[in-house]
Amino acid sequence: MASTDKPDPEVPTKSEVTPPPLPPPKRVDYFAVDVGLRILLFAATLTALVVMSTAKQTELAVVPGVPFRVPVEAKFSHSPAFIYFVAALSVACLYSIITTLASLGLIAKPTFATSFLLYYAFWDVLMLGIVAAATGAAGGVAYIGLKGNSHAGWAKVCPLYDKFCRHLGSSIAIALFASVLLVLLTMLSVFSLHSRIRE
Amino acid sequence: MASTDKPDPEVPTKSEVTPPPLPPPKRVDYFAVDVGLRILLFAATLTALVVMSTAKQTELAVVPGVPFRVPVEAKFSHSPAFIYFVAALSVACLYSIITTLASLGLIAKPTFATSFLLYYAFWDVLMLGIVAAATGAAGGVAYIGLKGNSHAGWAKVCPLYDKFCRHLGSSIAIALFASVLLVLLTMLSVFSLHSRIRE
Repeated sequence: MASTDKPDPEVPTKSEVTPPPLPPPKRVDYFAVDVGLRILLFAATLTALVVMSTAKQTELAVVPGVPFRVPVEAKFSHSPAFIYFVAALSVACLYSIITTLASLGLIAKPTFATSFLLYYAFWDVLMLGIVAAATGAAGGVAYIGLKGNSHAGWAKVCPLYDKFCRHLGSSIAIALFASVLLVLLTMLSVFSLHSRIRE
Repeated sequence: MASTDKPDPEVPTKSEVTPPPLPPPKRVDYFAVDVGLRILLFAATLTALVVMSTAKQTELAVVPGVPFRVPVEAKFSHSPAFIYFVAALSVACLYSIITTLASLGLIAKPTFATSFLLYYAFWDVLMLGIVAAATGAAGGVAYIGLKGNSHAGWAKVCPLYDKFCRHLGSSIAIALFASVLLVLLTMLSVFSLHSRIRE
């Protein structure tokens, strides 16, 4: 009512009118969840690596051209797909250590949190591509070992090398879990970034 | 200088002092790039699908138990890895159509752009996981077809089925390109989200 009579010196008029200061953005920092997921990722990739590396079994097998059964060793390095699998998971394991430390640092000092969320999303996506492709490749080859392929004339390997195949299967299952963790980590970073946008 | 003598009616004092209105956030909308990448993704997935589906070749081959060579057909559906590959790329192809249309809609009416960027990043990551795993699985099996595996006693297939293997190789290479596109698309969404944050 008083405002129509004379300008109140305390209230800025017309052109100076500024909107009230926006409330501080609802920053949802899930760095504790992030650290937890990254430690899980480290555990998963390390377990998959150890289980794959220890997949060794020696059995008496028929070798073409030899009239009697000879001991033949099966190990992961006999297939390029499994070598790629070990290489990819080693990279992911190292990556999980580095990013866990970085996340712990961000909890202590969240100054550069926004930039780090961007980098995390970028690198997590790359790692996901590498780990998912490795899981797929190892899974495809291990499936042939399990079921064979009658069309191509590829025989089953797992009936003889049972312990070897159990190692392969467990390792690939854990790597699949690691891929899911990487998807979740990317989504978490993206969601944290999204929560920082002040519309 | 004048401010020390008496309060200027035009200038709000002390407690009312508000920061100048923040400049509008530097919104970098790369939806044109996004649409371009998604159209490329559509083209890549469709090409990979067509090339894989048309991978058929019939050759005279030795079949155990048959004293003469018989015509044996090779096609992608003889391997579970290639069936998964076709399924995964079909999903990615459909997804690329839907998201291209959505991106075109966002260029016309960018009201919900922020929310869509979040959804895009979520779904692109999931698609990346599916397509990368499919590429890895098909690649792992195709590599056995190309090189064989002497340890497991799996013979090469490609010296006989050359055209079939060329189709497989081309299709897998294009799927790898599609995976890279999905990585780029996710990074683009994340980067666009990041550019909307007003620090």
